[in-house]
Amino acid sequence: MALVNENYCNLKESYLFADIAKKVSAYAKEHPEKKIIRLGIGDVTRPLAACVVKAMEKAVAEMGVQDTFRGYGPEQGYGFLHDAIVKYYASFGVALESNEIFISDGAKSDCGNITDIFSNANTILIPDPVYPVYLDTNVMCGRKIIYMEGKPENNFLPMPDENVHADVIYLCSPNNPTGAVYTKEQLEKWVAYALKNDAVILYDAAYEAFVVDPAIPRSIFTVEGAKKCAIELCSLSKTAGFTGTRCGYTVVPQALVRKTAAGQEMSLNKMWLRRQTTKFNGVPYIIQRGAEAVFSEEGIAQCRANIAYYQENARIMMAGFDKLGIKYFGGVHSPYIWLQCPQGMTSWEFFDYLLENMAVVGTPGAGFGTMGEGYFRLTAFGSRENTIEAMDRIVAGLKNL
Amino acid sequence: MALVNENYCNLKESYLFADIAKKVSAYAKEHPEKKIIRLGIGDVTRPLAACVVKAMEKAVAEMGVQDTFRGYGPEQGYGFLHDAIVKYYASFGVALESNEIFISDGAKSDCGNITDIFSNANTILIPDPVYPVYLDTNVMCGRKIIYMEGKPENNFLPMPDENVHADVIYLCSPNNPTGAVYTKEQLEKWVAYALKNDAVILYDAAYEAFVVDPAIPRSIFTVEGAKKCAIELCSLSKTAGFTGTRCGYTVVPQALVRKTAAGQEMSLNKMWLRRQTTKFNGVPYIIQRGAEAVFSEEGIAQCRANIAYYQENARIMMAGFDKLGIKYFGGVHSPYIWLQCPQGMTSWEFFDYLLENMAVVGTPGAGFGTMGEGYFRLTAFGSRENTIEAMDRIVAGLKNL
Repeated sequence: MALVNENYCNLKESYLFADIAKKVSAYAKEHPEKKIIRLGIGDVTRPLAACVVKAMEKAVAEMGVQDTFRGYGPEQGYGFLHDAIVKYYASFGVALESNEIFISDGAKSDCGNITDIFSNANTILIPDPVYPVYLDTNVMCGRKIIYMEGKPENNFLPMPDENVHADVIYLCSPNNPTGAVYTKEQLEKWVAYALKNDAVILYDAAYEAFVVDPAIPRSIFTVEGAKKCAIELCSLSKTAGFTGTRCGYTVVPQALVRKTAAGQEMSLNKMWLRRQTTKFNGVPYIIQRGAEAVFSEEGIAQCRANIAYYQENARIMMAGFDKLGIKYFGGVHSPYIWLQCPQGMTSWEFFDYLLENMAVVGTPGAGFGTMGEGYFRLTAFGSRENTIEAMDRIVAGLKNL
Repeated sequence: MALVNENYCNLKESYLFADIAKKVSAYAKEHPEKKIIRLGIGDVTRPLAACVVKAMEKAVAEMGVQDTFRGYGPEQGYGFLHDAIVKYYASFGVALESNEIFISDGAKSDCGNITDIFSNANTILIPDPVYPVYLDTNVMCGRKIIYMEGKPENNFLPMPDENVHADVIYLCSPNNPTGAVYTKEQLEKWVAYALKNDAVILYDAAYEAFVVDPAIPRSIFTVEGAKKCAIELCSLSKTAGFTGTRCGYTVVPQALVRKTAAGQEMSLNKMWLRRQTTKFNGVPYIIQRGAEAVFSEEGIAQCRANIAYYQENARIMMAGFDKLGIKYFGGVHSPYIWLQCPQGMTSWEFFDYLLENMAVVGTPGAGFGTMGEGYFRLTAFGSRENTIEAMDRIVAGLKNL
């Protein structure tokens, strides 16, 4: 009798985006005359950079011709893309070896799959509020999960607590959903904690391209010692608008070694290579050529222009909330504005208020964890026109609240 | 202290293709004048069909324009591709619902990831010889693995044994590496065994497009009752030359229900949906448009022309071995020829003999499991010219052996 994985019974169904969609569609039906502006979902809207399109067009054509056709590529990605990423990391002072970089179809996949190489006996430390994938992928393995609280007092940036025992730690900076970013000094404390406790940090750097201050780390490997205690997950989704194009990468340093329960020392780099060569067959050649173009001089400039567009949206949003005197986090090094709901409203009360009075859609913070209650996420990924109009409505609607 | 997954210590490193490469490169160095012909690796060589290239070119262009740009797509794939696959299955008499089809980056990924939804308490039944991924992905979970023997007496098609207890069963037809195909009557026996024992069959149909006899099942779902006991994994790698383009699909029927150890009934379709929405973010839009074109009338005709090319290679190879009186399996409904090594040679002895005397490279059967010893795999994926030349050399070289 085939038995199924019983841990799946412990997963909580998230109805967050389904509930939002339901409410929005009901509102639209009742108010067909209203133009609803959606600043809820963390998906990009700007088209791919011209040089990326050109590189992929060339690669598609190559696949149609006998002499340039490519079959199976290396599971961990082509050398040309490794080289491009090594150069990219060097530009902010991080030296990587090619074989420390694993190309994948995105940070979400790697974030889920990386659990494979760890024992289920580990205690997992997860921030609250949080990107739900960290939690769910560990519930699927039946692991012990503990939380660290993000709150206004710590600027939604929880710090290590010597009294808490954790084996695997998830950090995300710039953070989804709060937009908060760790400073180098703060990351040094996390690395010190991990080294002292032989823990491993899974560092989600998916939003690194939004960091504007060169003093703020774009990689955990800017911190000394991090290569002995951290894995970094990154993605082109937000860097280059690849949410529907799918390419990411994970850095597993050669220096990262941990033991089995029986005490055998294992290289995590070799384990991940074994995982990927066994359960993955690489990213499409066409997509890898597009990704290579992202890291070219031209590509960096073109992608940066798109990010600047979103950053200007964020500035417009921040200016509105500043005018209203509403407290918020994020927005500077992040496409997310994480604001305190006015008048002590709950997340869902504010959601309804915003929808019904201003026809603007955002995401209730409570959807990201208990500590998100009373907070609300808006994204800067909309068009300029919609962002301006939404903020005009919000400022007008809330100023006399 | 972060502990790593100790089951990884039980994985055997496979040096098969590395050892082959080493021997070939040593031979090439010693004999720079010889033209080595490689018929070893199961990778396609024909370029993508013209209509697939055209569809992807269009999709790439769409991604560069504001109005047609696409961000996140559904994790389980776009409706347009589901519809195309529903129609494709209908063409050989299988009725599927859209939500039973999950688009992925390939059968290897799904084959590895599908283990997630099963309990580690299951006993896994695997054929020998076998595609190594079935074995390794289950070793990674620490599962009990038992084997069923493929041998000349059963035409390398092991059948169910009522005395063997198995919970999850891997079947691959047309088979890699042996090229053997199950008849409908044989699959009916497997389905009956699975239904009787509440087992689940993981049916790898990656080579279905090579089936030439309409009486041979191209899907396990042509067998009545299979939707209550089977998951089918399929891929465009061999159907449409997508080994470097990466798209596959997995069919998890709505009727497939199994229990947890605690007795809770679970829909495997819902579990796989949860797995994929949590740990996967969909296949690139560009690639899905290419895959859609594969299933168009034009695409089916163009892809079939490529397959016919490989099938003609297989016929040339079979004619050579017929002339030599060498016994082989496969070749008819498969790009693989699985031959008995002449003169009682071991797989590696024959490998060396073929390389040193005829400068032809194949794959020693022993690399696919104990039962592969004394056998040898050649593939029909080479060019016509090389296939003819290799067979001329083999026939000339072996006829007086």
